[in-house]
Amino acid sequence: MSLPNLENASTLESAMQLMIQTFHKYSGNEGDKYTLSRAELKELLTTELGNYLGNAQDKEAVDKVMGDLDSNNDGEVDFTEFIILVGALTVACNDFFLEYNEKDQKKK
Amino acid sequence: MSLPNLENASTLESAMQLMIQTFHKYSGNEGDKYTLSRAELKELLTTELGNYLGNAQDKEAVDKVMGDLDSNNDGEVDFTEFIILVGALTVACNDFFLEYNEKDQKKK
Repeated sequence: MSLPNLENASTLESAMQLMIQTFHKYSGNEGDKYTLSRAELKELLTTELGNYLGNAQDKEAVDKVMGDLDSNNDGEVDFTEFIILVGALTVACNDFFLEYNEKDQKKK
Repeated sequence: MSLPNLENASTLESAMQLMIQTFHKYSGNEGDKYTLSRAELKELLTTELGNYLGNAQDKEAVDKVMGDLDSNNDGEVDFTEFIILVGALTVACNDFFLEYNEKDQKKK
């Protein structure tokens, strides 16, 4: 899959393009090339979100994320479901950074 | 506001950090530094999403986005409301790219 190039894109447009690229990097590996199977989701979680989610190696953790995301129960995660996960994680990260910064300000 | 650095971050983690950075770049300009006022939202839309949204200079367009996003009607857009906008735009972009690619494939 080819995407418009990143030149001239703003910071936010680059972020949007990176999310689209990441999804398709994994979704194209097997089965439906526009959705993530359980194996593709596991690979995405461990490779791309290792720093935030810790070790998602165990099958139970992957099954739980798949269960939470796969709102139509077809065993596949589509792009909209993926964006909901990334959005929720980004909100959680932002809350964490704000709290961290407030503590850091108080120390000074 | 300082954020953990981008070194060692995966592509997806970089995208998440870029969204957080973009929001705070504009939200800190006036009033509550953790929300976007109407003026801050307008600056973000025109500067960061000009390629996708076209010219959002006119007041009506900014008012419409503000009205749609500001779910609690306080005249400010918070981080969660901002992420919902970016998520919806990213899903729309992905749909557009897929359609574009399919047409491109058929031509070959």
